[in-house]
Amino acid sequence: MIQYGVGPIGAGIVRLMLQKPEIQIVGAIDSDPQKAGKDLGRIVGAERDLGVIIAGEARDVLRAGAHVVVHTTSSYLTQVTDQLVACLQAGSHVVSTCEELAYPFRKHGELSQKLDRAAREHRVALLGTGVNPGFAMDKLVLTLSTACQEVRRVKVRRVVDASRRRLPLQKKVGAGMSVEEFQAQVQAGVIKHHGLPESAGMIADSLGLRVDTIEETIEPVVAQETVRSEFLEVAPGRVKGVRQVARGLGGGQENVRLELEMYLGAPEPVDTIELSGVPDLKLAIPGGIHGDLATAAIAVNCIPALLEAKPGLLTSRDIPMRFLPGVAQLQSVGA
Amino acid sequence: MIQYGVGPIGAGIVRLMLQKPEIQIVGAIDSDPQKAGKDLGRIVGAERDLGVIIAGEARDVLRAGAHVVVHTTSSYLTQVTDQLVACLQAGSHVVSTCEELAYPFRKHGELSQKLDRAAREHRVALLGTGVNPGFAMDKLVLTLSTACQEVRRVKVRRVVDASRRRLPLQKKVGAGMSVEEFQAQVQAGVIKHHGLPESAGMIADSLGLRVDTIEETIEPVVAQETVRSEFLEVAPGRVKGVRQVARGLGGGQENVRLELEMYLGAPEPVDTIELSGVPDLKLAIPGGIHGDLATAAIAVNCIPALLEAKPGLLTSRDIPMRFLPGVAQLQSVGA
Repeated sequence: MIQYGVGPIGAGIVRLMLQKPEIQIVGAIDSDPQKAGKDLGRIVGAERDLGVIIAGEARDVLRAGAHVVVHTTSSYLTQVTDQLVACLQAGSHVVSTCEELAYPFRKHGELSQKLDRAAREHRVALLGTGVNPGFAMDKLVLTLSTACQEVRRVKVRRVVDASRRRLPLQKKVGAGMSVEEFQAQVQAGVIKHHGLPESAGMIADSLGLRVDTIEETIEPVVAQETVRSEFLEVAPGRVKGVRQVARGLGGGQENVRLELEMYLGAPEPVDTIELSGVPDLKLAIPGGIHGDLATAAIAVNCIPALLEAKPGLLTSRDIPMRFLPGVAQLQSVGA
Repeated sequence: MIQYGVGPIGAGIVRLMLQKPEIQIVGAIDSDPQKAGKDLGRIVGAERDLGVIIAGEARDVLRAGAHVVVHTTSSYLTQVTDQLVACLQAGSHVVSTCEELAYPFRKHGELSQKLDRAAREHRVALLGTGVNPGFAMDKLVLTLSTACQEVRRVKVRRVVDASRRRLPLQKKVGAGMSVEEFQAQVQAGVIKHHGLPESAGMIADSLGLRVDTIEETIEPVVAQETVRSEFLEVAPGRVKGVRQVARGLGGGQENVRLELEMYLGAPEPVDTIELSGVPDLKLAIPGGIHGDLATAAIAVNCIPALLEAKPGLLTSRDIPMRFLPGVAQLQSVGA
């Protein structure tokens, strides 16, 4: 496979793929001049060189061919369309962590059709996924819903203790800012988790819940007392993180509600799903699903299903998802 | 579709299918002379006749043809093989709640191959599923495992308050018996939940966990004080239910452990999954998944995925699972 984008998520994916004996990394792409020309192993913090030199340009690497490209360059679908099409044209299946690709049909209808056509034309599958969107607030909801005879409303809440995450994420949630700085960064589109409308759309369209519009709000979580992480200290009155809510509205009702809180020192990180229906069902993952670990895991674990899937544009709702055994497991079973 | 078997589960499935506008019931089969010849609606407790007369013999009904047969007659695969093959030969996809079909490859290797061949030959899919086995203690485990970079051990626990379930289930767990009667019924194979080895096998083989043998124990849960249900009263010292454990052993370790407790008055019904790995993950469904409602739901909700699946013998791990919208949902979205 080829790793397209060697930022923190891409690097985590590469390190994980090194544990999967069925996966061979044959190429890597990153336009960052600090990375291009260097060995992939060095850049991702592996213990050895991998004999794979990161290319600054995609074309030649893609042309050399790979069964799968794992794509991790941007959250915005319009920014990555050409990259994705180039992968498809090279005949590679693609799994991408681009958040807007996780369920692109509502926001990018035409683009979705274009990508679906390109994938079908080249007989490959294109999948947008990750922990969120792609799993915690949508796929897991759909899976749980299988046990219901009727579903009327869905509420999902994800609380992340940002102090346990990497520094860029802590900054991305506004930790350490004044409330005014935070609001300006929200206005500028910098403080924003991408993917809630995608998850809400996937839930609504899959479960037959009426959602005509999706409203999103982004608010600061303000520290009442001093909170610290390994990297930052936040004084009382300043921002320790973000609370983002997406409300899926239809027929005068809130039929899908997604709440995402990410802040330093969140006392009870958790993922919860509540289905109102027959029967009501509630699911909780105490401690929550670790975002970075899980996004890498999900991108890699989906590869076998991707290879077996029908050609076209897919989302995580379309494939059965499960863990792909690695070296440790295969040694223990004697394979 | 055709309903094959109109016991409590089959009846629940028929009632649910009546809420799904995409499903039309064209036939029903049950060998019970109390049911054969009567209108299906009357037998399942629907509010109206359905114009479908229950047939005592399968042959003519199957020959008439249906896209899907929902099969709910027995827990034992050897008892239903001929029934299943007849459905496949008629060109129908089949979803069956036969517990031994949920993951038949370990216990019934040859039979699995035979069924797989028959399904492929007739270009249809055959799926064994239900709430347990098929979902709560296996599919949900596999889905959660997608968020893991490594999985070393799996523990699943399902606690059911049997007093909220139908009388046959309360009796099936031994409620009201003396400990001696309970043990005799265990010896006779009467008190036994079917499906734990199937779930353990699906987990082990899918996640690459070494499980060479699966040991199963069945023990009484004895009442310390009087417990009551709508139907039964159990005095102290008598049995209020069952505790069944399956241990998947390999390399001197217990790598998969499934615990199922079903007894009257269980104070905290719950489904929990614990994955030991990177990261550790724990999932809880407080209150637990309602068995009868969920088995009917799962059998019906899987039908669209079954129609899109590749021909052959499938298990719930092979298909994406989610709720199939019914009349209520479709009305609300204006469809």
